[in-house]
Amino acid sequence: MTVSDFLSKDDAKDGGFADVPERIPLGEYLLKRLISIGTKSVFGVPGDYNLSLLEYFYDDNLKTDIKWIGCCNELNASYAADGYSRYTGRISCLLTTLGVGELGALSGVAGACCEDVRVLHVVGIGKNELSDEAQIRDRNMHHMLPDMYEGNMKGPNHRIYYEMIKGRISCSSEYLDDITVACDRIDKVIRDILRHSKPGYLFIPSSFFDQMVESRNLVTSPTLCLKNERFMTSENDIERITDLVLSSLYGSSTPALLGDVKTDRFGINKQLNEFAEMTGIWCFSTVSGKSILDESSKYYMGVYNGNCSLQSVKEKFLSCDLIINFGIDINEANYGFFSYDYKNDAKVIQLHPRYVRFFDNKTKQEEIFQNVNFIDILDRLIHTIDLKQLGLSYDPSFKSFSNDDLVIPEHEYTLSHITQPYLQKYLPNYFNPGDIIISDTGSFQFALRDFKLPSQSKLITQNLYLAIGTALPMALGVGIGMQDYPRNHIFDDSKVDKDYKPKLILFEGDGSAIMTVQELSTMIRYKVPMEIFLLNNNGYTIERAIKGPTRSYNDIMPWKWTLLLEAFGDFDGGFTKSEVLKTRKQMEAKLEKLKLKSQTGIEFHEVILGTFDISTQLSQMIASTSQ
Amino acid sequence: MTVSDFLSKDDAKDGGFADVPERIPLGEYLLKRLISIGTKSVFGVPGDYNLSLLEYFYDDNLKTDIKWIGCCNELNASYAADGYSRYTGRISCLLTTLGVGELGALSGVAGACCEDVRVLHVVGIGKNELSDEAQIRDRNMHHMLPDMYEGNMKGPNHRIYYEMIKGRISCSSEYLDDITVACDRIDKVIRDILRHSKPGYLFIPSSFFDQMVESRNLVTSPTLCLKNERFMTSENDIERITDLVLSSLYGSSTPALLGDVKTDRFGINKQLNEFAEMTGIWCFSTVSGKSILDESSKYYMGVYNGNCSLQSVKEKFLSCDLIINFGIDINEANYGFFSYDYKNDAKVIQLHPRYVRFFDNKTKQEEIFQNVNFIDILDRLIHTIDLKQLGLSYDPSFKSFSNDDLVIPEHEYTLSHITQPYLQKYLPNYFNPGDIIISDTGSFQFALRDFKLPSQSKLITQNLYLAIGTALPMALGVGIGMQDYPRNHIFDDSKVDKDYKPKLILFEGDGSAIMTVQELSTMIRYKVPMEIFLLNNNGYTIERAIKGPTRSYNDIMPWKWTLLLEAFGDFDGGFTKSEVLKTRKQMEAKLEKLKLKSQTGIEFHEVILGTFDISTQLSQMIASTSQ
Repeated sequence: MTVSDFLSKDDAKDGGFADVPERIPLGEYLLKRLISIGTKSVFGVPGDYNLSLLEYFYDDNLKTDIKWIGCCNELNASYAADGYSRYTGRISCLLTTLGVGELGALSGVAGACCEDVRVLHVVGIGKNELSDEAQIRDRNMHHMLPDMYEGNMKGPNHRIYYEMIKGRISCSSEYLDDITVACDRIDKVIRDILRHSKPGYLFIPSSFFDQMVESRNLVTSPTLCLKNERFMTSENDIERITDLVLSSLYGSSTPALLGDVKTDRFGINKQLNEFAEMTGIWCFSTVSGKSILDESSKYYMGVYNGNCSLQSVKEKFLSCDLIINFGIDINEANYGFFSYDYKNDAKVIQLHPRYVRFFDNKTKQEEIFQNVNFIDILDRLIHTIDLKQLGLSYDPSFKSFSNDDLVIPEHEYTLSHITQPYLQKYLPNYFNPGDIIISDTGSFQFALRDFKLPSQSKLITQNLYLAIGTALPMALGVGIGMQDYPRNHIFDDSKVDKDYKPKLILFEGDGSAIMTVQELSTMIRYKVPMEIFLLNNNGYTIERAIKGPTRSYNDIMPWKWTLLLEAFGDFDGGFTKSEVLKTRKQMEAKLEKLKLKSQTGIEFHEVILGTFDISTQLSQMIASTSQ
Repeated sequence: MTVSDFLSKDDAKDGGFADVPERIPLGEYLLKRLISIGTKSVFGVPGDYNLSLLEYFYDDNLKTDIKWIGCCNELNASYAADGYSRYTGRISCLLTTLGVGELGALSGVAGACCEDVRVLHVVGIGKNELSDEAQIRDRNMHHMLPDMYEGNMKGPNHRIYYEMIKGRISCSSEYLDDITVACDRIDKVIRDILRHSKPGYLFIPSSFFDQMVESRNLVTSPTLCLKNERFMTSENDIERITDLVLSSLYGSSTPALLGDVKTDRFGINKQLNEFAEMTGIWCFSTVSGKSILDESSKYYMGVYNGNCSLQSVKEKFLSCDLIINFGIDINEANYGFFSYDYKNDAKVIQLHPRYVRFFDNKTKQEEIFQNVNFIDILDRLIHTIDLKQLGLSYDPSFKSFSNDDLVIPEHEYTLSHITQPYLQKYLPNYFNPGDIIISDTGSFQFALRDFKLPSQSKLITQNLYLAIGTALPMALGVGIGMQDYPRNHIFDDSKVDKDYKPKLILFEGDGSAIMTVQELSTMIRYKVPMEIFLLNNNGYTIERAIKGPTRSYNDIMPWKWTLLLEAFGDFDGGFTKSEVLKTRKQMEAKLEKLKLKSQTGIEFHEVILGTFDISTQLSQMIASTSQ
């Protein structure tokens, strides 16, 4: 088995462009290149400088459908693109217009940059300093910023927006100013995005889209994919490092796999689960790595997050003498506000796309091997491990993670209204294998960490950038991804009923929802079915937990949420249903009915929660960090 | 009369802080400083790093009310702040949280930068490189971007967002890292904003707001205002340049005043109108300068915009032998896509806050005097002009601008449905003296240029940055400004009935509205009355005029607009009314009723327009420029 087979999700296809004419318009080149890397839908807002590209979506020469998903605004489009990439594992594409559109999307792209999501942001630009007309080069055009102090005397800095993002919120960015190398530069940005798993930018003059370019790259490189573009490990290092890992493993009686987010971003969830199953090693997730490792497995022990872990999970983690941490991503949210700890004499191996670090918790000695890609190491581990040499010997009193690990206050069981602790206990029963669960930043996100998720499910949420309002448009992007790539996230088909269409389930707070709510309309427009739980706790509850619990700045305007889907386009209720859930009884009755029903439209549930209702996980977080 | 009296709108008051304690918390200092410059409302979204500042809004020590206007998202808040400043002529304040909130507002601040609007953007930041805790300095915290390639090995660039905006979309920006000079830096940014009429940024660690600082500046500089902070002209230059202008004026038989936007931004609309009235010189406006000069005056001749002008206006402009251009702002939208022309032997005098340029259109010779502020020149012109030396001799066949200058196709008069040419003819009759008219970027904006506006009205719209979706939240900001400063824009009280409360009238396209629509909710929350004309032309009509008239990318999802205000919080219809207007008859019947009625709530009119219905002004624009 080669890495080519190993990266099975990296299945971007030869676009079948062998017979493409030698010269084609740049717009056609760009869309064909997107098709070749598996990007089947493009998100954005039309604007004067990108209309020429949009025309190519309707061009018969494309021979393959590529969908345009017109969003209500650019920030929302950027979140949707982010979601598309998180779900599909492929590069998503965001299309905007210089300045007015592009800058609106910036925070969404920054979020993708923060969380290693592969978004290609294509910005249509206008006549610029390339123009033959001096008066255009040197004068103030719309969407541009005049010189700060001498706007009437000299021309604008045409590259001002490009200079803002270059090297800051993109791993690769090109401002196309030479049509003869435009295709090479497009490919370069795509290669960099694949390699670094960060966003990239292309600034393209709108006049370029109709200009003819060599199509050669589509023939010589019919696709661009992770297996070719990732950092490569030397054969020597692969062997050496794998042997070191195996030697640690053979010497350990209580090893653990710790799954972190880069495992997902680099497309080897399936392989890590295979490795877990074949070895029987205990599995933990980090916060950002949640749902990478199969939580239905008897080897799954829970989310470890330092002092913010459940007590039972922490005890198990601290009993392990070897931690093999795949896809490590170190930050305050993911590492328990830096309260991470290990067993006194534990050995720790951290694997990353660019390095492997060995750390001895007893001697505090470390050794770092640079230029080693964890993809290669995992590949060789699977193929060379000698299971007979494993000597696993876990304390049998420790059990697999279950819903019972979540301890909630006794009085919770006597209440009839809906609370977050109740949702922690009840909702996991409602999810089915294969379901996609999306949560916004907010109080409920902390509760969700310790849900027991079913097999083959995927949790999608921002864990570090933590912008509110992301999840609703992100769900749109995921839903479009599910149309383009059904069951894409399922790595073991046997665990999901073949007739079951995985659900898309969104948890959205009211304070978050008001930021980006109009994208409900786009869900209706493109017929994206999902279940939405609008957790209405009367404002910014997560902020009330930090400061100003009763201050009016933490209030929002009360809305009639259940009217929105009608207002936003589902006039006859043909695609959506909306209702309010106030009691546990109402919720259970409703969800029992929905549990195994296929999603054919949007079911919108406004769930009434208390203004100060939070989970113990959030309380722990607040206690662990002060603002 | 001194300049101090002359800048009558620059009436920021001594905050009455003579008895302020010597040391106060920085949060209190910042709010007191805002109060002292006339900023009575602050726009934004609460977030973890700005909550400590928000607490000071509730502090009894402030002794003056300063309002917090919580918006649905940061982009909308930035547009609202922009509108507040455009209306009040004062610095507006926008409050966000690092990264997640701040970047969302970026496009709005860029728009303010592009169009010379004074917005102070205060960004609450977290623990940073100032922290005593090494692990915080060097580790990845939420809202921040990890290092692009070595995020696990080294800390983030804490100043990355600051570096993006510094010198690009702000004339002044400070990242506070030393509490002992925090007040001075705050004052410096405010002074720069006043002087340059561009946005400024303050990045303030949330831990600073509660730290004690010297209040001294509030006593030594009880207010900061334009008259002290603007560029000053030397006495010598004031005299010399004024004499040159007067000498040109005395030698001219057909002079014209051309009012451009910087006149408004530097607060001398009243004075320019006084000068126009006392001299009887013809008045023209640029596109961006529209409504600065009183259009009800018999001296008002129309909007001149080069080849994109109405023919009758162009003829009048080209008959003038001297053009005195106040507050000049040169860009493609404002200068007829660079088709500006003058009478063959015209002399042109362009006045700006930092220079005056004399240009002879016959000899093409020019002379530029730097460091001359047009405020000083206008002041001296008014006080030294000898009216007896004027020798005005205009062709009597030219008439003042009237609604009749707008020629619309004959068949328009026979239609019963609503069209843009109809609106151009009908709506001006509906406006009353003193009304504030706001328009979004879009097809209708071009129609609006040649409306005949009543006296003391003010038109607010983006003319150069041209982002769609701005006007709706901008109207919120203007409405809050009208609460804080009623009749602020009226420079001649005799022209507006003393019992008439000026109306706020918003024209918003459907394609624009979907971008920022949730801010309707904030209008209800803070009880901001206005009339809204939602021009429903079924998508992006302005883009259809450029490309893809029937392409689906120019469509949007049809909405039930009249449900929105109920959904967004006006459950019982107590504050809002919504209705659909399909015919001219319906429109006229409705507006006749509303014309002189005081605005006590929101009247929302969905006006049904044709998908391809545009004004001749927009057709001209498309013909003048190609994408």
